[in-house]
Amino acid sequence: MPRNSAARLRHVLILVLAICTLAGCTAPGGGTGGPLVIAQQGSFFIGGRDVKSDTLSTLPAYSASGTVTVEQMYVRYQVPASVKGWPVTMIHGCCLTGKTWETTPDGRMGWDEYFVRMGHPVYVIDQSSRGRSAANVGIINAVKTGKAPVDQLPPVFAAGQEGAWAIFRFGSEYPKVHPGMLFPLEAQGEFWKQMVPDWIATLPTPNPTVPALSSLAQRLNGTILMSHSQSGIYPFQTAALNTAGIAAIISIEPGACPAANGDLKPYLHLPIMVLWGDYVDGAPRWAPRLKGCREFAAAVNQAGGKTQVLVLPEIGIKGNSHMLMQDKNSLQIADLLLDWIRKNVPARP
Amino acid sequence: MPRNSAARLRHVLILVLAICTLAGCTAPGGGTGGPLVIAQQGSFFIGGRDVKSDTLSTLPAYSASGTVTVEQMYVRYQVPASVKGWPVTMIHGCCLTGKTWETTPDGRMGWDEYFVRMGHPVYVIDQSSRGRSAANVGIINAVKTGKAPVDQLPPVFAAGQEGAWAIFRFGSEYPKVHPGMLFPLEAQGEFWKQMVPDWIATLPTPNPTVPALSSLAQRLNGTILMSHSQSGIYPFQTAALNTAGIAAIISIEPGACPAANGDLKPYLHLPIMVLWGDYVDGAPRWAPRLKGCREFAAAVNQAGGKTQVLVLPEIGIKGNSHMLMQDKNSLQIADLLLDWIRKNVPARP
Repeated sequence: MPRNSAARLRHVLILVLAICTLAGCTAPGGGTGGPLVIAQQGSFFIGGRDVKSDTLSTLPAYSASGTVTVEQMYVRYQVPASVKGWPVTMIHGCCLTGKTWETTPDGRMGWDEYFVRMGHPVYVIDQSSRGRSAANVGIINAVKTGKAPVDQLPPVFAAGQEGAWAIFRFGSEYPKVHPGMLFPLEAQGEFWKQMVPDWIATLPTPNPTVPALSSLAQRLNGTILMSHSQSGIYPFQTAALNTAGIAAIISIEPGACPAANGDLKPYLHLPIMVLWGDYVDGAPRWAPRLKGCREFAAAVNQAGGKTQVLVLPEIGIKGNSHMLMQDKNSLQIADLLLDWIRKNVPARP
Repeated sequence: MPRNSAARLRHVLILVLAICTLAGCTAPGGGTGGPLVIAQQGSFFIGGRDVKSDTLSTLPAYSASGTVTVEQMYVRYQVPASVKGWPVTMIHGCCLTGKTWETTPDGRMGWDEYFVRMGHPVYVIDQSSRGRSAANVGIINAVKTGKAPVDQLPPVFAAGQEGAWAIFRFGSEYPKVHPGMLFPLEAQGEFWKQMVPDWIATLPTPNPTVPALSSLAQRLNGTILMSHSQSGIYPFQTAALNTAGIAAIISIEPGACPAANGDLKPYLHLPIMVLWGDYVDGAPRWAPRLKGCREFAAAVNQAGGKTQVLVLPEIGIKGNSHMLMQDKNSLQIADLLLDWIRKNVPARP
């Protein structure tokens, strides 16, 4: 490429960045059109520990003895050219991976890209022992070779689609569909492919993902921790470890909120949003959890905190499943969270 | 964002794209600087089949019975604003995931981004049953609950670091280091975190990744299949299934090339590059594989094909490990492949 063209290109890019800074880098009305300008992207791991084992393999090509690293957390990130807000760390739920936040099953833009387009650096993780974060399988070969009893096999599980149907609140039971359902069930096959075996029951408490999130938050010098479902409690557990680096918590349909009668100090100075979709009251798995979160929020707010529980049908948004970030109105929900962030999370000092 | 600013921004972006098209979108001397302009990105799955099982779980919260989808292949992609060449599909090797091609262990730009910056749409996969592509774990719970005998436990394995040391040719044996080694061993801890358990021995032949690659190639209406190590044979197996959509094959240190005395027809009309690093002759695992690839190339070329075997030290590039795409000269190697593509792969008609 000739020098002159390169210099010209640089000037134009500087102009683009200047305009982006002044006016935002997206088209009006949704922000999903036009090229995406990325300042930096990549991936890395946080955490992990070395384990020595004599049962890594039963195959002749690979030694049974050696060291493996397990419990690390995979992180993929994108930083937009025009940063306008806190980094957002997206933490998937049960039986899923970071894919949760990417392209929806029916092919629409995922929150991972949308938040970048809205000016937020985005960090998408795979929880420890899931997806690109290695699980520890040595015990399987220990049992296979008679070195450990069968009952020591790990309680790994795969969530069946029929059972998951009610958990994700597509309907009260498989294959019934809640009226007005906004999950793109016509593309459910693509969604089921997102599900992976879950080793969570083999891991210590707190899940190694939690200290890894704390390290990430501190490394980023501030991030909004956005969790979903089974990981819903993680940002709270991370704050209980250390509030350093946590700018806010967004917990989407958490499996649990902290106990209302527990130590609330870690949560009193954090903006916290707990978001819920539709059909919760009729869901035996979810209704008590929403109730628990309401009690937690009431206790925190009584103690001077600032926790909001938002149930979408209560503001007139109906039809959302448990997979809010993939529902047909996913960008509307994202806009709602972006608005909450603007109004409630103080800008980086 | 006000309408006028949006219109102004659109004009500037159109100007940027025009200059990109004329002059290339990267700074001279490496092309790793400046913002990255993406036209489209996302992720999806290809393939997969539904399996019914009564041993999905031993945990009360998740049903033992149900349907799961397995053997699908996860694909993440980025299309640059200025496309100047074929899509490149990057296929990782043993005990690894698509992370192979992302940020290097010591934090430099991965090939996934570099090839995008050089004008190629890039598709990074996780092989069937690894990373974000679900493995089938039902048999573990079948054994755990006494419904299947212990010897039916899957031959899943984890490659220990000490054994992998010689396989990745960091040295002849752990912890010896080959003189002039270009792998960033100071960051080896980050590399070991990339390794995941490998379920490959539980899968049918050809690996479900192979038909999935064929589907992807046809869906893209043409792609260069770039494999590494254990996946080295996959592009060849894909071509043997159907050459439709395969623009070229780049096989980096393949575990095997096709047999020289086999059916060579699928390979006669494809530009093929088989690339090797340093220290191969002294490596008992690799020397015979290089020899096999040389025999394959000779047979293909004798029959009128166009297969090149390039051993880097033979053109004066020394010090490369088996993990070429992460070595300190990784972008030099990428440039070499980009040059080969320009010279040998006919442009899309």
